[in-house]
Amino acid sequence: MTSYLFNKVALIGVGLINSSLARALKEKKIVKEIIATSRTLKTRKEVENLGIVDKVTSSAIEAVKDADIIIVGIPVAAYLGVIEELKNVFKEGAIVTDVGSVKGSVVKEISSLLPAHVHFVPGHPIAGTEYSGPSAGFSELFKGHWCVLTPDDNTDQNSINKVRDMWIAVGMKVDIMSPDHHDSVLAITSHIPHLIAFSIVGTVTNMEEDLKIEVIKYAAGGFRDFTRIAASDPIMWRDIFLSNKGAVLEMLSQFGKDLDNVKFAIQEEDSKTLEKLFTKTRMIRRDIVGKE
Amino acid sequence: MTSYLFNKVALIGVGLINSSLARALKEKKIVKEIIATSRTLKTRKEVENLGIVDKVTSSAIEAVKDADIIIVGIPVAAYLGVIEELKNVFKEGAIVTDVGSVKGSVVKEISSLLPAHVHFVPGHPIAGTEYSGPSAGFSELFKGHWCVLTPDDNTDQNSINKVRDMWIAVGMKVDIMSPDHHDSVLAITSHIPHLIAFSIVGTVTNMEEDLKIEVIKYAAGGFRDFTRIAASDPIMWRDIFLSNKGAVLEMLSQFGKDLDNVKFAIQEEDSKTLEKLFTKTRMIRRDIVGKE
Repeated sequence: MTSYLFNKVALIGVGLINSSLARALKEKKIVKEIIATSRTLKTRKEVENLGIVDKVTSSAIEAVKDADIIIVGIPVAAYLGVIEELKNVFKEGAIVTDVGSVKGSVVKEISSLLPAHVHFVPGHPIAGTEYSGPSAGFSELFKGHWCVLTPDDNTDQNSINKVRDMWIAVGMKVDIMSPDHHDSVLAITSHIPHLIAFSIVGTVTNMEEDLKIEVIKYAAGGFRDFTRIAASDPIMWRDIFLSNKGAVLEMLSQFGKDLDNVKFAIQEEDSKTLEKLFTKTRMIRRDIVGKE
Repeated sequence: MTSYLFNKVALIGVGLINSSLARALKEKKIVKEIIATSRTLKTRKEVENLGIVDKVTSSAIEAVKDADIIIVGIPVAAYLGVIEELKNVFKEGAIVTDVGSVKGSVVKEISSLLPAHVHFVPGHPIAGTEYSGPSAGFSELFKGHWCVLTPDDNTDQNSINKVRDMWIAVGMKVDIMSPDHHDSVLAITSHIPHLIAFSIVGTVTNMEEDLKIEVIKYAAGGFRDFTRIAASDPIMWRDIFLSNKGAVLEMLSQFGKDLDNVKFAIQEEDSKTLEKLFTKTRMIRRDIVGKE
C-alpha cells in the first residue's frame, strides 16, 4: 500500500510552476489525486490534453472543497479575489500555500481573510524559465533550487512540515524566513535584474527599425541574455513589481547611484575605478559558481 | 599537397579569442604555421603547455617579421604601443587584423601608423565566454556567430577576402560595415549589457555581508545571468568602455531615461504601462530566437 503525503491536491491556476509541480508530484507518486482549476478555457483544454492531472474543472469551489492542500499559482494581484471566493469552502484543517514571488503584502492580506481552521503556509519555489503556461512545465524544474517558506509564529508546525516535505520530494532545498526579508532578498536577486532587462530590451524596441534589426542580428554579445529574462510572463511580472514596490524602488535607487558612478568613471576616463569594479564583480561569480 | 590560406600566422596576445582561433586554424588545416607572442611569461608557458601553436616567443618582432597575417588579440588600449614597435617590421604585403570589440577610434589611429605596403583589415569576431586566457579557448567558439570587418574604401580587396575566408573557415558568418556603425550596434548589443551587469553586481558587492551571502545563495532568480556577464575580463572591458566612450554614454543616457519611466510607472502603480512594456519586450526575444 502506498502512503501519500496528500490525498487530494487542488491547483488554482496551472502555469509553468503548477504544471511542473503536477508532473513531479505524479511522477514521484507523492499525492493520490490532483484536481486543477483555471478561469481560462484555453488553459483548461491544454491541461486536459497534457493529461498531467486527474481532473480539470472551471469551478474553483469544486476543486478546493475536499482538498487537503490548495496550491495557489496565479498572478499575485488575483490572489485576494480568489481567496475571498473560497474562504468558506476550504475543509477543516486544509493547507493553503502559494508559489508567488512576493510575500510581504500578500501574506498579510490573505492571512486576515482565512478562517482559523485553515493553515496558510506561504511559499516561493525559486525556479522558472522564460516560458509560461501549462505546456512549458516539466517535472525537473525544481531540482536543486531553493524554495522559501514564510510562515509566521502562529502557523501550524505540522502544516509547515508537510509543505516543506512536498518541495523536498520534488527536488528542492527549503528555507524559512520572514515575508519582508524574502522580499528584500528577491528584489535584488530577481526583481531588479528582471526590471533592468525589461527596461534595456524596451530601449531597443523604441529604436529605429534599421538599428533594431541589427541589434537582433548581433544579439549574441550579451544582449541575448537580457532578452531571455525580458521574455518572462508580462502579467506575472507587472504584479511582482507592484506588490513588491517598496523593496524594488529602494534597490533600484541604489542601483541608479552605482550606475551613475560607473558612468562618471567612463566620462572622466577613470580607468583605475573601472578596473577595480570589474575585478570585484568577477569574485561574486566565483562565489556563486562555487556554491553550486 | 595541401594548399593553405596562409603560410605563416602571427598571434599577438593569446587570450580566449586568439587561443580559440589557433586551435580552429590547426584543426581545419587552414594555415601552415602559427607563431604566438605574449608579454606575459605565464601566458607563454600556458600556450606552450597547451601545444596549440608551433612556436611561442617573447619577441613580438620575431613573431611578426615573416608573417603573412598578424592577428592582434590584446586589450584595445595596448594596440598603439605594439603597432608603433612593429610598424617597420611587417613584411611587404602582410595583412594586419585584430579581434577587438571597439573599432572607430582604434582603426583611425592604427591606419595612420601603418606603412602603405601593409594591409589593415580591422575585425571583430562576436563570440566569447565569461572566461579568459589561453586555457579557456576552444576551437568551436566561433561556430555560427557573426564576425564584423570594418575596412575602409582604400583597403586592398584581396586582403579583405582572405581575412573573411579565414573567419568563414572557422565557422563564422562575416559582415562588413563602417567602424562607427559597428561601435553603435555593439554599444547596445554588448557594451551596455555588460556595463549594467557590472554595475548591478557591483551594487551587491557593496552590501552588508549577511545580505550578500543570501543574494549569492538565491542567485538563480535572474541575478545569476548578470554575474556570468560581469565575470568577463576586467582589463578588456575597461578598455572597451573607454575606447567606445561616445556611443556607450549616449546609449546609457537613453537607457537611464527608459529606466526612469519604468520606475515612475511602478511608483504610480501604472499597471497598464508596465504590462505594455513587458509584452513588447517579449516580442524581441521571439525575433532573436526565430533568427537563430
